[in-house]
Order: sequence, then structure tokens, then C-alpha cells
Amino acid sequence: MDAEPTVLTVTLNAALDLTYRVPRLVEHREHRVSQVSERPGGKGLNVARVLAGLGYGVTVTGLVGGASGGEVRRLLADSPQAGRLRDELVTVAGPTRRTVGVVDDSGDGATQLNEPGPGISPGEWSGFLDRFDALLSGSSAVALCGSLPPGVPVGGYGQLVRQARAAGVPVVLDTSGEPLRRGLAARPDVVKPNVRELAQVTGTADPTWAAREARRRGAHRVVVSLGEEGLLGVSAEGSWRARPSRRLSGNPTGAGDAVVAALVSAWVDGVEWPGALARAVALSAASVRAPVAGEFDRELYEELLPGVEVTEESSGAE
Amino acid sequence: MDAEPTVLTVTLNAALDLTYRVPRLVEHREHRVSQVSERPGGKGLNVARVLAGLGYGVTVTGLVGGASGGEVRRLLADSPQAGRLRDELVTVAGPTRRTVGVVDDSGDGATQLNEPGPGISPGEWSGFLDRFDALLSGSSAVALCGSLPPGVPVGGYGQLVRQARAAGVPVVLDTSGEPLRRGLAARPDVVKPNVRELAQVTGTADPTWAAREARRRGAHRVVVSLGEEGLLGVSAEGSWRARPSRRLSGNPTGAGDAVVAALVSAWVDGVEWPGALARAVALSAASVRAPVAGEFDRELYEELLPGVEVTEESSGAE
Repeated sequence: MDAEPTVLTVTLNAALDLTYRVPRLVEHREHRVSQVSERPGGKGLNVARVLAGLGYGVTVTGLVGGASGGEVRRLLADSPQAGRLRDELVTVAGPTRRTVGVVDDSGDGATQLNEPGPGISPGEWSGFLDRFDALLSGSSAVALCGSLPPGVPVGGYGQLVRQARAAGVPVVLDTSGEPLRRGLAARPDVVKPNVRELAQVTGTADPTWAAREARRRGAHRVVVSLGEEGLLGVSAEGSWRARPSRRLSGNPTGAGDAVVAALVSAWVDGVEWPGALARAVALSAASVRAPVAGEFDRELYEELLPGVEVTEESSGAE
Repeated sequence: MDAEPTVLTVTLNAALDLTYRVPRLVEHREHRVSQVSERPGGKGLNVARVLAGLGYGVTVTGLVGGASGGEVRRLLADSPQAGRLRDELVTVAGPTRRTVGVVDDSGDGATQLNEPGPGISPGEWSGFLDRFDALLSGSSAVALCGSLPPGVPVGGYGQLVRQARAAGVPVVLDTSGEPLRRGLAARPDVVKPNVRELAQVTGTADPTWAAREARRRGAHRVVVSLGEEGLLGVSAEGSWRARPSRRLSGNPTGAGDAVVAALVSAWVDGVEWPGALARAVALSAASVRAPVAGEFDRELYEELLPGVEVTEESSGAE
């Protein structure tokens, strides 16, 4: 273990993200792809690259396997952020999933094809729990991000949250559906759903009410992404709305990962709310202007940060 | 070198073929792929697998690189035909292309996305020419198949044809466009275009006239695939039409590769035309009934072979 504590990010369903450019996608036809790009994918790896880009030391763990898993590790090692990333990914037998995003000249969003991910055996999962415990001892905070591959128990994030809390390491959870529901009960320090994900789990469409419901179910703090409208943050201290000073259009795929990275960075630096929310809004907006998830426009981040408007909502904590 | 001569197949633009199943492909949406399959791809590798399936010893060469190239080699080594395949693929720096075929429940053809292939350096190309020369000395016939990756000279197949002829090894060329045009001039023993590919190169839509034009430009024998209508074969001895006894529907992607494999097998066994055309029609039809390129229904092949109708066309050789 390094003497200096680092941030730990967990990516259980890592991916090799491929982007294909074609002039126009036509069903049932053959296309020659004019441009191919490959990136390490999965939310936790994006969060790690943003944190490393901000200057933090990051330890990356999760599950990878097969030739595509080898590619993910190679791409991480070759990334501009590699100097601040420590690869502690755990190798499994099944191959890491690929995702294919087909981008055409229409300017509309990509047509996305996501493989399901490798099957994880009970032995592989318990091996990962041991590694995770060992890595927690050198970590200042941990981010648990993304979907679960087949074979990982649906309560898997709940287990990781409990291990982190037992080790005294603050934990941010960013997932959806049943893994989020089960993760809430383990009392994570922060959860960061978007409006749709939060409504799905709480049954409540109103973001403020839904965030309070998520707190009632166990989360200490709830940060809800409202898209271009910014963020809603709800904690025991009250509710805040944080809005960017101007709206930026661009590539929204990594915006949520940037929010997680900002919340983790604020925690590590001892920045309390509402300052943490301001960081999250500015970094999210700066990531929308970068071409790919896991990157951000640093100058824009620093320009936007002082202008983020954070207001306490009239009704305080429940 | 083995004492026993083997068939040599060349795949300059090998591929890792991925097939994704989705219920329905919708542009600009996200899809969860329900089923993923991976196969070694590129026409020469399909021809090799068909020949090995028929019982011939096959040496496989061509260019592969990167993690996807490693996957192609691993899949070849794990294929049911592996016992009869010798891997003499040459490693290059650039990564082997992937192809993605998206199959949905409509029953219509796949939506196909083909990466362009790795850039080949002049040094890599000249290294391949040396390896090809060495492999020719143990070969009874050679099949040159498919597209050229970026960086290989457009006259590359012409050069390989000349080397094969200098070594006294009969050569079948299956490509299209400018590489076919340039290959013809090097006087290959057989070319196997389909009607469209032949029209593109000769400027003549009538298959018989176009085949004669291809002979005039250098090919000794021309076999034109006419889809479900069977084959047209034109040589110095005359013109033949070969038709299956019944039409079979199924997956047409490997039919042309099966024709090449049959023509090579006939050459190796000393089977003259029209017998070679009968093999080609029967094997092509039997491959249409197999789910993937490079495979065929062996029982069906043997059942169809005696019933193929081969007739000499009224006008003989030019």
C-alpha cells in the first residue's frame, strides 16, 4: 500500500467502449465504418479518469477478463491520466463486455449496443470482496459505480457499502434499479441517481420528495441530477438547488460521472455542502464540453465554478 | 515444413466477426444485446475452415494484430476444424478489424458495421511477401481472398499471384474492385467474382461476356456466382452452367467462400471441370444451410452433389 491515501473507484461491469462513425445508419445494410475509437469504459473508470485529471491519486478496482479486459487495462495505462491511476482491477474468467456506439452525421444521439457482461462465479465474487477490503485500508473515499455483471448478487453494492462503512471510508453509490434499492439500505454516505432512476426506486416522481424518501431508506445524502437544470442536494442539514450560470450543450454521456468525481473530491478536501454541489455542477458542465466520458474542459471548469448558483430550498430537512 | 503438401489460404484483412442479437434495432437508442457470438472472420479464414471441414490440411496465413488479432488466433485454435489448420498468420502492429452484425427478430438481413482494418507498413508488407514465398513451397494450391487492409499496395494480389505462379502453385483469387482488376493481369488460374463484382471490373453486365472479358485480361478460368441460380464457369475448354437440383434458403454470407473451397479441393484432387463446378454448387448450397460462414451441412453436401445439373453452353470457348 502507498503511504498516501488515494481515492478508490469500483467498476464491477467494466467495458471496452467502441465508437463507430458512419455517414448514416440504415437497418439491414452493410456499412463501412470511417472512424473507430476505443476507450476504457464503465462509470467507475470514467470517475477515476476525471479525478486523476483533477490531480487526485486514484486506485481503480473492479472486474475485468478476456482480451477485451486486457484492452481496457492497456488503454487505462496509455491514458493521459495514467500517472495518477493505480490499476488494481481483479481478473475474472469471462470476457469484459464491449459497448458499441454508432454515431452518424445526423447530430442525434448515438445508436448504442451494450453487451451484457461476463458471468461472475461465486468464487470470483468472494475473491473480489477480499481484495476490496484490502484496498479500503489505503483509501480516503470510495465510489461504487454502474451496473452489476451477471452472477454478482443483486445486493452486491449493499455488501460493499457495509464493508466501506466498517472500514470508516466514506462511500458514494451511483447505480440504479434493484442494486440501488438494496444499496440504500446499507446506508451509503451519498447516492447520486438521476430523476428517472430515483423515481423508479422510490415510486415518487417529485425529486425533492423522492430524495427524502431515499434518505428515509438509508442514504445520508442524496444528489439528484436534473440534467441541464443542475442538481438537487438533500441531506440532514437541508435541501439545495445548484444551477450552472449558463447552459452548455454537448456530449452528456459522462456528466453523471463528473458529478460523482466532484462529490468525492469535495469529500477528500473537506469541502462541505453547498460548496460540494457547486463543484459538481461546474465539473458536470465542463465534462459535457469534452468529446468523451471521463474527460473535461479544465479551463471551463475553473471559469464556471465561481458562477454556480446554490440556493437553499424553502423547506429544510424533513 | 510438413512433408505432406497442404492448401494455403491468404487473409490479408482478417477480422474478428461479432454477431449481436437484439429484439429490434432502433436508431439513436440504447440496446441491451441479448446474445453475443464471436468468430474468426475474413474470407480466407472461412475458406480454410470449409476445407478443413472437408478433411484437407490447410495452412492459414495473412495479417493479424492487436488484441482482436489475438482473439482471431485463439478462436481458430479452439474451432472444431483446428486439428487440420496450421496457423502461419503474420503479426502486424495495427489491430485486426472487428465486424459487428446486428441481427434482430425481423428475419431480415443483419445490419452490418465493418471496421476498415489496420494500416500495414511497407516493411510489414515486404515481410509478408517473404513468409508467403516460404509457405508456397509446401503448398498444393493457394486461395487469395477478400479485401486489402489500408497500406497494402492495390496491386498486392497481383504480386502474390506472380509469386505463386513462379513457384508452380495453382492460385484462386477471390476479391473485387481494383485489387481484382490488378490481380487479373497477373494471370491467376481461377477468379471467382459474383455478377456485380465482375460487371464492375469488366464494364459488361452479361455474365458470359464479362467472364470472357476477364479471361482476355488474364484469368485462365472464371467462375461467376449467380446466387440461387448456381454458377457459370468459363475456361479455354468452353462455358458451363451448374445449377443445384433444388433451391435452398438460409444464410448466404459464406456461400462464395464455399465455392472457393470447392474449387481448390477439386484442383487438389485432380477433378476437372465440369466436376469441379458440381462440387462448388453443392458445397455452396450446403453452406447456406449452416448458421455461420465457414461451416456447411456435410450430409446435405453429399446428398446434393450427384444431383447438380451441369450443362455446356451452346457457344464454346471464344
